Amino acid sequence: MTEAAARSPGASRLTRDDALALDAGDALAPLREQFALPDGVVYLDGNSLGALPKRTASRVQETIVHEWGDGLIRSWNSAGWIALAQSIGDAVATLIGSGPGEVSVGDSTSVNLFKALSAACALQQADAPSRTTIVSERSNFPTDLYIAESIAAASGSKLRLIDARDLADQLDRDTAVLMLTHVNYRNGRVHDMAETTRMAHAAGALVVWDLAHSAGALPVDLHGADADFAVGCGYKYLNGGPGAPAFIWAHPRHTERMDRDGMRQPLSGWFGHAAPFDFTPSYRPAAGIGRFVCGTPPIVAMRALQCGLEVFAEAESHGGIAALRAKSIGLADLFIDGVETTCQGRGLALETPRNPAERGSQVSFAHADGFAVMQALIARGVIGDYRAGHAPSAEADLIRFGFTPLYTRFVDAWDAAAALADVLSSEVWREPRFHRRTVVT
Amino acid sequence: MTEAAARSPGASRLTRDDALALDAGDALAPLREQFALPDGVVYLDGNSLGALPKRTASRVQETIVHEWGDGLIRSWNSAGWIALAQSIGDAVATLIGSGPGEVSVGDSTSVNLFKALSAACALQQADAPSRTTIVSERSNFPTDLYIAESIAAASGSKLRLIDARDLADQLDRDTAVLMLTHVNYRNGRVHDMAETTRMAHAAGALVVWDLAHSAGALPVDLHGADADFAVGCGYKYLNGGPGAPAFIWAHPRHTERMDRDGMRQPLSGWFGHAAPFDFTPSYRPAAGIGRFVCGTPPIVAMRALQCGLEVFAEAESHGGIAALRAKSIGLADLFIDGVETTCQGRGLALETPRNPAERGSQVSFAHADGFAVMQALIARGVIGDYRAGHAPSAEADLIRFGFTPLYTRFVDAWDAAAALADVLSSEVWREPRFHRRTVVT
Repeated sequence: MTEAAARSPGASRLTRDDALALDAGDALAPLREQFALPDGVVYLDGNSLGALPKRTASRVQETIVHEWGDGLIRSWNSAGWIALAQSIGDAVATLIGSGPGEVSVGDSTSVNLFKALSAACALQQADAPSRTTIVSERSNFPTDLYIAESIAAASGSKLRLIDARDLADQLDRDTAVLMLTHVNYRNGRVHDMAETTRMAHAAGALVVWDLAHSAGALPVDLHGADADFAVGCGYKYLNGGPGAPAFIWAHPRHTERMDRDGMRQPLSGWFGHAAPFDFTPSYRPAAGIGRFVCGTPPIVAMRALQCGLEVFAEAESHGGIAALRAKSIGLADLFIDGVETTCQGRGLALETPRNPAERGSQVSFAHADGFAVMQALIARGVIGDYRAGHAPSAEADLIRFGFTPLYTRFVDAWDAAAALADVLSSEVWREPRFHRRTVVT
Repeated sequence: MTEAAARSPGASRLTRDDALALDAGDALAPLREQFALPDGVVYLDGNSLGALPKRTASRVQETIVHEWGDGLIRSWNSAGWIALAQSIGDAVATLIGSGPGEVSVGDSTSVNLFKALSAACALQQADAPSRTTIVSERSNFPTDLYIAESIAAASGSKLRLIDARDLADQLDRDTAVLMLTHVNYRNGRVHDMAETTRMAHAAGALVVWDLAHSAGALPVDLHGADADFAVGCGYKYLNGGPGAPAFIWAHPRHTERMDRDGMRQPLSGWFGHAAPFDFTPSYRPAAGIGRFVCGTPPIVAMRALQCGLEVFAEAESHGGIAALRAKSIGLADLFIDGVETTCQGRGLALETPRNPAERGSQVSFAHADGFAVMQALIARGVIGDYRAGHAPSAEADLIRFGFTPLYTRFVDAWDAAAALADVLSSEVWREPRFHRRTVVT
């Protein structure tokens, strides 16, 4: 067992016993007990919707029954609701290399991106008005591109979509803002945040990072990279529940500048006012990240997100995000190795970088009938998801597998590879029932 | 008892037994059983945070444990999450005089107002570009003014704040949009929606209504008034919980026009795309109200809001919103009558219109030490709230009392008036402990 556990999972095809041995030697294994996972399911879609922390149901119940039901309006003070946007933000901050008081939680990722990108464009408009282009990656998550389209259209600037490999050539004197998702939602490729930010700054651009697929999945160091703005998702790796509140960060140099010059972001709701309960008719932005809050925070949903973040706090004593990253790499390596060993000639092509340093916490394979393959796999109890490719950019149809190290076991990765091999070799995915399109896969 | 019940509560000072008799004869009284209200409290702040429907805790538990925990990503289909923004919107529609498919739920009121006001301004920009002024009421709820400030600043237009009584003179050929809150958050005065909309249309303006203090509190007929856009709050009269998702409505003539001309609102997130799960890089707005959805909907919070709306569906068999309105007027009349009979010479001045047709579902009194008076009253178990006045507009400090007819009894209104009389006559409010400012009252 010790020998198997010590063997690198990517070196060769392991046996199921080897995978079990890796779990037995996994210091993070006890964290799985923090989650309520259904029996008979291997859940590899935590990169789309994270699993349910066991503590969440009772905590939300407490918030509803006691804080709301008994405390009523008084709970804004007595239960600390008023401070949640920032206190939960502080918990996020520990995962993304930012400081206390720099992150605020609330609204959706799309809405927060609108705030961050608007603020970045406004700063450039003030300092370098000739820069009128937002640059992003063509294969960025669509909502980012849609929001950037709107901001560009409203401000008379341009949105230029490029391939990631052309980045160095595409940052020019027109570029106001580079907007990237740290880990690509399709192929899981990770940008070198520090190097990309350095390059963008050297070209005179600001950088807005979307951490949807990286916060909680791998170490992120916004200050170390000298990043400008960031947003991220609460319902993927942070396990905050479906549609959980998102987060937003701005480098203090930008919030200080905005403080100094009285700059606002456009979603200037009352909870982002310097003194919301003065009810003054004119807007005066709160200092720091507080100006990025908009309406009344969604308390019940924020309590659920808080529970997800508490699990990360517990993971600290098991090695924290560095240990989680190492396990995530091990899980993905084992899965890639298993699939490539057992599914040869079955039409799969690895789309995720083989080098762990170049990928996030997911593995994607192209398959011409990816939708049906994934449906057949889900019917077997292995839940990943499917993302359609797009003809103009020669993107392939993908099946995606997320390896969330808080609750995924090595044996899950092994079983998933075996199930995929079986689905492909049996050709069960050809059955018509697996070709019926549903809204979300 | 019958005689007392039949007596108009506003005609004279009633006894507590009279109030009890009114409750005994109240066809809506059983609806109170739908709510979990703490013992020993008279809750008159449902206009700020509605009370907890009993069904909510178990429904949210079910959503968390079974839909999220067991169903995981599959629940977007199997639990109908994907359709909630619109299906809950349809429940809201029945309360505001709009049709099915016309209302969408999600985001905060502030964010939704940003969408609606942006769309209204964009329509005017296309049709009447010389109109560059947004007109609103100086005493409108601040978040509305803050959002309008931002939209005006970004588009180079003006925000003109007026007194409501000057409205007829202030709509001119510059006016693009009139933005009003149907029921004023301070004094509870209600605008005549049909007449105001007619006047604005005659002047060439579009009208955006904020229904935060009217949806669920009194009959609203958006189609009858030929209104243009509306937004409203989920956590006040709709009892959706702290920070509940808000709603947005647009008249079909505007969404059809936007469909025809490919117009978007600026918060163009992926859930407002015509085919979000195609993941195309370019935005194409969903038809109808669907284009006003932005990011991933907050499912847990939406389930809670759904519970609040179900109580209104049950109220249908008790006379519905018309019966609720009649009771709300009766409650407020009884309270005003009680206060004015017992608190004479105590420094109170009624700020809410005495004529029930001119007010919403709240009663506000000015008092020079309103903050302390309200704190003393809360210590007595009667929960209303306090809103500071603003010197430049000669606004008084107010104490506010909301009369939410789903769960407020006539005896509650009677007891609240008696408690207020006692707080004032005893001058207990002068104690220093009642003068310590907290964040929210």
